[in-house]
Amino acid sequence: MSADRLSNMSKEVKPESVSLCPLGTAAAPEQELLCIFGTGDFGRSLGQRLLQTGYKIVYGSRRPHSCAPLPQGAQVTSHAAAAQSATLVFVCIHREHYDFLETLAPQLKGKKVLVDVSNNLKKDLYPEANAEYLQRLIPGAHVVKAFNTLSAWGLQNGPSDASRQVYLCGNSAEAKQGVATVATKLGFTVLDRGSLSAARELEDFPLQLFPEWRLPLRLAIGLTAFFFFYVVMRDVVYTYVGQGKDISFRIMVSMANKVFPIVSLIMLSLCYLPGVIAAFLQLYRGTKYKRFPDWLDRWMLCRKQLGLLALGFAFLHVLYTLIIPIRHYVRFKIAASTISKFKANQTMELDNTLAWRTDSYFSVGILGFGLYVLLGITSLPSVSNALSWREFSFIQSKLGYLTLFFCTFHTYLYGWNKFLSPSYYKWYTPPAYMLCLVVPTVVIVLKLLILLPCVDRSLTRIRRGWERTDPEDDSKNLLLT
Amino acid sequence: MSADRLSNMSKEVKPESVSLCPLGTAAAPEQELLCIFGTGDFGRSLGQRLLQTGYKIVYGSRRPHSCAPLPQGAQVTSHAAAAQSATLVFVCIHREHYDFLETLAPQLKGKKVLVDVSNNLKKDLYPEANAEYLQRLIPGAHVVKAFNTLSAWGLQNGPSDASRQVYLCGNSAEAKQGVATVATKLGFTVLDRGSLSAARELEDFPLQLFPEWRLPLRLAIGLTAFFFFYVVMRDVVYTYVGQGKDISFRIMVSMANKVFPIVSLIMLSLCYLPGVIAAFLQLYRGTKYKRFPDWLDRWMLCRKQLGLLALGFAFLHVLYTLIIPIRHYVRFKIAASTISKFKANQTMELDNTLAWRTDSYFSVGILGFGLYVLLGITSLPSVSNALSWREFSFIQSKLGYLTLFFCTFHTYLYGWNKFLSPSYYKWYTPPAYMLCLVVPTVVIVLKLLILLPCVDRSLTRIRRGWERTDPEDDSKNLLLT
Amino acid sequence: MSADRLSNMSKEVKPESVSLCPLGTAAAPEQELLCIFGTGDFGRSLGQRLLQTGYKIVYGSRRPHSCAPLPQGAQVTSHAAAAQSATLVFVCIHREHYDFLETLAPQLKGKKVLVDVSNNLKKDLYPEANAEYLQRLIPGAHVVKAFNTLSAWGLQNGPSDASRQVYLCGNSAEAKQGVATVATKLGFTVLDRGSLSAARELEDFPLQLFPEWRLPLRLAIGLTAFFFFYVVMRDVVYTYVGQGKDISFRIMVSMANKVFPIVSLIMLSLCYLPGVIAAFLQLYRGTKYKRFPDWLDRWMLCRKQLGLLALGFAFLHVLYTLIIPIRHYVRFKIAASTISKFKANQTMELDNTLAWRTDSYFSVGILGFGLYVLLGITSLPSVSNALSWREFSFIQSKLGYLTLFFCTFHTYLYGWNKFLSPSYYKWYTPPAYMLCLVVPTVVIVLKLLILLPCVDRSLTRIRRGWERTDPEDDSKNLLLT
Repeated sequence: MSADRLSNMSKEVKPESVSLCPLGTAAAPEQELLCIFGTGDFGRSLGQRLLQTGYKIVYGSRRPHSCAPLPQGAQVTSHAAAAQSATLVFVCIHREHYDFLETLAPQLKGKKVLVDVSNNLKKDLYPEANAEYLQRLIPGAHVVKAFNTLSAWGLQNGPSDASRQVYLCGNSAEAKQGVATVATKLGFTVLDRGSLSAARELEDFPLQLFPEWRLPLRLAIGLTAFFFFYVVMRDVVYTYVGQGKDISFRIMVSMANKVFPIVSLIMLSLCYLPGVIAAFLQLYRGTKYKRFPDWLDRWMLCRKQLGLLALGFAFLHVLYTLIIPIRHYVRFKIAASTISKFKANQTMELDNTLAWRTDSYFSVGILGFGLYVLLGITSLPSVSNALSWREFSFIQSKLGYLTLFFCTFHTYLYGWNKFLSPSYYKWYTPPAYMLCLVVPTVVIVLKLLILLPCVDRSLTRIRRGWERTDPEDDSKNLLLT
Repeated sequence: MSADRLSNMSKEVKPESVSLCPLGTAAAPEQELLCIFGTGDFGRSLGQRLLQTGYKIVYGSRRPHSCAPLPQGAQVTSHAAAAQSATLVFVCIHREHYDFLETLAPQLKGKKVLVDVSNNLKKDLYPEANAEYLQRLIPGAHVVKAFNTLSAWGLQNGPSDASRQVYLCGNSAEAKQGVATVATKLGFTVLDRGSLSAARELEDFPLQLFPEWRLPLRLAIGLTAFFFFYVVMRDVVYTYVGQGKDISFRIMVSMANKVFPIVSLIMLSLCYLPGVIAAFLQLYRGTKYKRFPDWLDRWMLCRKQLGLLALGFAFLHVLYTLIIPIRHYVRFKIAASTISKFKANQTMELDNTLAWRTDSYFSVGILGFGLYVLLGITSLPSVSNALSWREFSFIQSKLGYLTLFFCTFHTYLYGWNKFLSPSYYKWYTPPAYMLCLVVPTVVIVLKLLILLPCVDRSLTRIRRGWERTDPEDDSKNLLLT
Repeated sequence: MSADRLSNMSKEVKPESVSLCPLGTAAAPEQELLCIFGTGDFGRSLGQRLLQTGYKIVYGSRRPHSCAPLPQGAQVTSHAAAAQSATLVFVCIHREHYDFLETLAPQLKGKKVLVDVSNNLKKDLYPEANAEYLQRLIPGAHVVKAFNTLSAWGLQNGPSDASRQVYLCGNSAEAKQGVATVATKLGFTVLDRGSLSAARELEDFPLQLFPEWRLPLRLAIGLTAFFFFYVVMRDVVYTYVGQGKDISFRIMVSMANKVFPIVSLIMLSLCYLPGVIAAFLQLYRGTKYKRFPDWLDRWMLCRKQLGLLALGFAFLHVLYTLIIPIRHYVRFKIAASTISKFKANQTMELDNTLAWRTDSYFSVGILGFGLYVLLGITSLPSVSNALSWREFSFIQSKLGYLTLFFCTFHTYLYGWNKFLSPSYYKWYTPPAYMLCLVVPTVVIVLKLLILLPCVDRSLTRIRRGWERTDPEDDSKNLLLT
């Protein structure tokens, strides 16, 4: 229900008649007329949607007689005529063509509301926001910035999920109210961002390119580059220097399959590290009411992205592992080893411990990956929205730590007894997988500390609002009040 | 907020009292009574939902004393009594039973609104739409077609995403307004489709079975059939004719694993071909305001479906590839080759180039599949809705072309030097994978052309609304205005 | 649009001016003031959201001068002052601190509405619901329970999908109306759950931990445990007792890969069994209007969860299968078999039938898994919401049965001719995979029975509302009416 319908009704419905029509159907609502300047994709989609919701539409066009096909039921006329006929005008034209609007200033002044839906191709292309520029051109009208975060496509298909919100700003509360009414009727949720000076911020929204993914992506690229270099040095270069053998072909699969799981495990543990740090900080401070340092806040906010990237790397690791037996090099090596075994003519005996170890290694890895995928699925917007808060935190925290534990254990099983054998420390450097175990091991140990009953109790109390106050501090408070 | 509540309020709230209760809580809103005919699944779910939203419900039933369990709080009575008590009647019964409503015509005439929620089992089962039939039976009432696209299940669980829209049509604007009010209050977005003659269209909505998937599915089936036949001819029949050897068992895995990646690559490139064609068309025409030919429009609209089917085939290709080493035939062949190598007693040497080539082939394929899956995930409604327009087009266009490039390169690596070796051209036909490279290569070359700075600049200008006009044309325009 | 704005408007707008401003923009809506007690996460998020939607906010705080950072634009003052200034007070503090509100009773009585948004850490922690306790403390105010199912996080990010619904209950219809108005303006759908005695139920909502997953999870764990025990007995223990050989290492991968597909297939068939049972029950009863027994209802409601768990097990089965060729044990066995074949010096011949059978076995399994994944994807909320009812039932029913058929056939191909060979019946027990074929075979046979034209016709008639009535029964009805 909307304010406009409201005013229509209060005009026509008499109190006597109301009791007879509890549904309010007595008032034949006169369809309201809205004006749209511009017959491009956005203007057409907006018009179609407004027509479907029950509005009447008139388009203002440069060439009313030869413009592109418009939604059925809409009228087309000149800009001036269209502007005169309606109170609310959607300006669906590019900023470059705004200047001609100055000629319409007489038709647009008074109570007219101009809705600026425009976006730019780049940030900081112009010194002032499009909406502010429009307001400067036509000072007599009320300019409202709105709908610019929607695409023509989204408008045509109706509001859905994240594209359900319409941000608006403007200097006139009345004008904003009118636009909000139309948006609500179209099925959007309206968020008022204040005066027209917020227009710049609104115009920058659709130009954002994964802002919350930047930090995690940089981290992933950095880690990948470092470990790739490290592994190439220790394997390819070391072998070449020591034995003069060229095994550079191993870069494509073997090295990649060393680097990807390492990056995946480190990034997964970096998901859980800030939570642990935050807990210790709260314990140390004795209160939850002090703000975390900025870097910790920013880190906490990109945990989901860190986890999803980690899942991506784990997925690649799985594929690279499963492809192993069809590689030419592996088939060659197996045939060579079979032949040499036969030549040695020794009786073959299965090493039971080795069989146990490798099978456990695979099994733990598979279960870890299964949980990983489960975490990924529950972080899909539609799935996580369907979960209650307790369910979501159960999965992301309890199952998350279980995943981290499985993956870390998987890596330890891979290392097994190599940790103590000096032959693995080429050039006095540890193998890459040992390096990558540092962060997850620290996170798991710290988490286990937090789970100790005494620590857990203090922490829960603090999170429920309790504060540890120094006796001194308390007396000060008393003095002050 | 709804019109009915509004009318209730204007009846009871006195201006003086208003200032005291800015929240509008002063008016005790009298719960409105709605009537539902029919106690089936849909009627029950609708009633329950309406009760939860604050309405009072009375059911009209053939057997008021022995009908199925109804939502708590609803009354049940005869059809006539129920109809008399409410202004708005939901007709939740099958069309076959409409005729008995004629007997209720006296109770239903006047300002009564009949909401027809019915659907049919098949298209074109009856000569006229259910709602039009109902209107003919009871000419005195206002029939509104609405809610028929919802399922009882969806009603019970509340509106969510795509099922959030309620389409309605009817001849009385008042009546439609009343129904729209109820729908809005239930949390739905209302789309008005005009007069009752649109009822047929609305009744056909829920009978649609993947209309936008039909073309891509047919294409996929056609391509699969063709390449399957082609591969079977060249491999199984050729071998049988030439060497008299039966290798038909290879159909199940080897041939399937040739056909699936071929179809996948072709369909992926068909996703990007229409965009390239459209760009060249716009360049040629010098304007974006002319409509594309119909076939291009239809092709553009099913790109998402083409891509998802391509992903499905790629997924099967991955599984078929990974299963290779556990196949009986493969194990047999490897053992035979190992034994023959041993018998030959030659010193084995790893072919470094071959190792590089095969490993690159696998690595590029895995990365391509990873990107493929990423594209698939971002086309999930809940994920794509959470992306800004720029983010979505970045993924679907930039990453999409990268995927296409990786997959094409993967296939070229597979072919390697076989392109020039005549022994691969059995019966003068090229291997299937060479055939499948045609379309993706064309798409990539055309795309590279478009990316040339000079071409790119013209195209961007055209897409921003610029038009290339012939001088002649211009002068004509001047004459006309 | 909301009732409050409405009352503001009717106060200010004069009928004469209405016709001039069809958009309702004439009335400069005075921003309404709401009060929030408590400056914790939830209070802050709620305040920010309300500010964005256009409300004015005043916080009541214990320490107005030193509290945590609050949303920009909000005022902070003492509880008493804040309570006096607004009609609607959101109580965003923990129940433990409610007692101090008693001191504010004078400020809170009258028409004040207290919104209790609290939740508890556990069920049944207190003898009465938080909202009822609050009402008892301040009998003069109208307590409304609402918003407690939302998280601070969800509030900040705006309503989305499942978290779009706000449940409320309270004893005053007016007060509930006021809260509903605010919730609607924030973009939520309101569901009225009745009087304040429903508060306990509402407070238990966010504490639920996957209630609908419990039965399927228990079943999955039970089946896994049983078959694990069964397989270990028949394989490890039998081999140890009979041949004194320790093959316990096979538990980690080989046994797991026997148990997981078995559990997956059984659970998939248990998805479809209740539907078949229900159909036969309807056929037997001759009506669809009688309720199903409770156990069947509960079973039907957890079919989706059964299916998703089955998919999870199938996913693990695929990974365990694909990992086979890189296992140490398998490589050892293959090398040993190659060597022994060479020693035997027999000419090797490929068994064509075996090649056909194993390849078909893999191919059918892969296609079955592909369909499985498709079913899983379409059961994602955002995907299933985008499907029409007919599309959803096509996928979940037709494609579901096809999946069941493929997976069952895959298992039969695995068994092949072992069904008749007594050597496979160790200790007179059948292999586990034979046991697991019982349920799916029964389901498929019953489904085929239902698909017989004569049975299908009766069933369709019954589901369209037709009832088989005994002549006797009918005459009774006649006597009664």
